[in-house]
Amino acid sequence: MIELNITVVGLGLIGGSLAMALKDLKPKNLWGIDIEKSTIEAAEKKCIIHKGYTKPEIPLKHSDIVIIALYPNLTEKFVKDNIKNFKKGAIITDVAGIKENLVNNINSFIPKSLDFIGGHPMAGSENKGLSFASKDIFNDANYIITPVEKNREENIKILESIAKKIGCKNVVRITPKAHDEIIAFTSHLTHVLAVALINSDILNVETSLFIAGSFKDGTRVADINSSLWVELLTSNRKNIINKIEVFEEKIETIKNAIKENNKSIIKSEFEKASLRRKELV
Amino acid sequence: MIELNITVVGLGLIGGSLAMALKDLKPKNLWGIDIEKSTIEAAEKKCIIHKGYTKPEIPLKHSDIVIIALYPNLTEKFVKDNIKNFKKGAIITDVAGIKENLVNNINSFIPKSLDFIGGHPMAGSENKGLSFASKDIFNDANYIITPVEKNREENIKILESIAKKIGCKNVVRITPKAHDEIIAFTSHLTHVLAVALINSDILNVETSLFIAGSFKDGTRVADINSSLWVELLTSNRKNIINKIEVFEEKIETIKNAIKENNKSIIKSEFEKASLRRKELV
Repeated sequence: MIELNITVVGLGLIGGSLAMALKDLKPKNLWGIDIEKSTIEAAEKKCIIHKGYTKPEIPLKHSDIVIIALYPNLTEKFVKDNIKNFKKGAIITDVAGIKENLVNNINSFIPKSLDFIGGHPMAGSENKGLSFASKDIFNDANYIITPVEKNREENIKILESIAKKIGCKNVVRITPKAHDEIIAFTSHLTHVLAVALINSDILNVETSLFIAGSFKDGTRVADINSSLWVELLTSNRKNIINKIEVFEEKIETIKNAIKENNKSIIKSEFEKASLRRKELV
Repeated sequence: MIELNITVVGLGLIGGSLAMALKDLKPKNLWGIDIEKSTIEAAEKKCIIHKGYTKPEIPLKHSDIVIIALYPNLTEKFVKDNIKNFKKGAIITDVAGIKENLVNNINSFIPKSLDFIGGHPMAGSENKGLSFASKDIFNDANYIITPVEKNREENIKILESIAKKIGCKNVVRITPKAHDEIIAFTSHLTHVLAVALINSDILNVETSLFIAGSFKDGTRVADINSSLWVELLTSNRKNIINKIEVFEEKIETIKNAIKENNKSIIKSEFEKASLRRKELV
């Protein structure tokens, strides 16, 4: 790849997976930062990074691109705490699942010599930590970039190109505000539903004997990283409440149709759903 | 396998898959019945069955086991219409996703010389038809058998043994009534949620650019066989309404906690969900 030094901050599931995928692009140097010494050691041993650090100063000073793969609140804190450590002209991006406040906050204090461009690779799994990291999670994934006016076009293009090169299928630009509204539906709502579904189990039987694919799939993400998700949902409160309410109306429509034995309404909801699902692929 | 003649009625996704799986067990004869001549021809060409029929008389007269893989209402009609065609002593079973009314109705008119034992292989896919059939759908699946008092123990055991031999992981017995209540939660509710989720899309964007695994998994079964599912849901009305209402309470709990920024409630719901999901595997 281009002769760049790249640093990934936070070698968890996403950061570790990104490092693996980026290493294949052969950057000049790929460094990792993590507060856990054991994580750094594991990443070095697996050759996921060229070198790892528990202190950010050294790698940041020489990094052209810094990808922060921390929880949203820690992402902002990391940029703030290290504002003097970044290399002049560096592109800084992140992977957080909420964008509006984060992007605005960081842009409120970042100097002109640095370019913070929000990013959200829509990849992951129900697991967390470096040991579950895999570069394959980006294959055919969506990667959302949420630029603002002050971001430099050439830098946005560099990030887009990297996202494509690590395997992402669609790399789209959208405003941070639109991102949060859309993601409230496509990601936050789906996680809430999975949790609510599995928590609705009031059967007095061994449920696992009576499930099939629909239940397994519908609850896969119910095994959830609760600290991260509490932060995501409460930070995106207005949007997620709105999406839950739209969903509640939809389920009410189906419930009432079943109650009233109104087969034509049920059928029409089902046919609409089938068409939409087919279009997704 | 045992020297038995087996007939599968209805060579759709489930019937076709069953025929494929049963053929590996080497029954004396494996016959198929379908009203579509082209389906019979396709099944014969693929060697899924030894011979196929569009009229049921001949195969039924010689079949020790008849597996009816039709929609629930057609299952009852098939038994009634063919009540004189079955071989004396035959075991008749079905694959319908609802059991109480069906099992009661069939048992109300079936002669003592025939043994109807309700069954529900919890396998399938979002597709329908013989072309999607695969014997693999039973691998590690659950198979529910819903016997009633008049069923003969040795016949139930034969069905259980077949279910195991085609690859099912758990073969459980439960009453038809309990089946319908449990399935309302583990299968019917999950399908309703998938449909309601995808129909809640009020975004003015190309949604597929902003989704990841949780949305794909949570809506997989929204591409639904609407005729079959309208019948399943309306036939199991009381149970499914009850399960939807329990679910609505759960989502309301999470929604209110998000609204009130009550992180400890959200966290506790998430932690409960995580534990339960881990137990499922």
